[in-house]
Amino acid sequence: MDSCRLDDVLASFDEHWEPRLVATVNDHDVKVAKIQGEFIWHAHPNSDELFIVLDGELTIELRDGNVVLGPRDMYVVPRGVEHRPVAEAETAIMMVELQGTVNTGDAGGDRTFEPVDLTRL
Amino acid sequence: MDSCRLDDVLASFDEHWEPRLVATVNDHDVKVAKIQGEFIWHAHPNSDELFIVLDGELTIELRDGNVVLGPRDMYVVPRGVEHRPVAEAETAIMMVELQGTVNTGDAGGDRTFEPVDLTRL
Repeated sequence: MDSCRLDDVLASFDEHWEPRLVATVNDHDVKVAKIQGEFIWHAHPNSDELFIVLDGELTIELRDGNVVLGPRDMYVVPRGVEHRPVAEAETAIMMVELQGTVNTGDAGGDRTFEPVDLTRL
Repeated sequence: MDSCRLDDVLASFDEHWEPRLVATVNDHDVKVAKIQGEFIWHAHPNSDELFIVLDGELTIELRDGNVVLGPRDMYVVPRGVEHRPVAEAETAIMMVELQGTVNTGDAGGDRTFEPVDLTRL
């Protein structure tokens, strides 16, 4: 793999809620996404999900409270825990999770998006 | 786990080459370290190793060339591949690797350091 410049990745697309796969580490994926607005409630039965904010502000709504993350803040949603990511303004995030983890988790539906694989470019 | 502010973590220590464990994602560790100078040549037989630069500049020396990373640049050293991290000036990095991966890999020696676990604070 060549080195990956996250700022080049972020400059390469505008779509919200459409993750880019930027690296794999063993059986785990590293993804980058731009988000704005509200996602759907869902859980990932088979994987924890690490969120790191690159730019902006991410609120991770949980059934028992919210976690608010600014740039260089991180949080791990444990496997099986329902959550809903929300960003008032456009926000760039990085995620680390088990390979094959689907963005909409157990909820499915029309917000499901297969990550764009940038690791093979 | 509470949210983790990488800037708070970085403000909490000065030591070089002494990683802090800041999160676990399934069976993978997320570590943060400050580095300066040259590390030793080593490889990790059982894990890929993702490097992301937070601040500064990291050179990953490989047997067939160097990879130079600035802030928000990332690179994955595949398992088994010899490498030597070098930073001329103080640099802050984040790493993702299989739980239990030792900083000196197969080389061992007196630079071996058990990460300080900040996830239980």
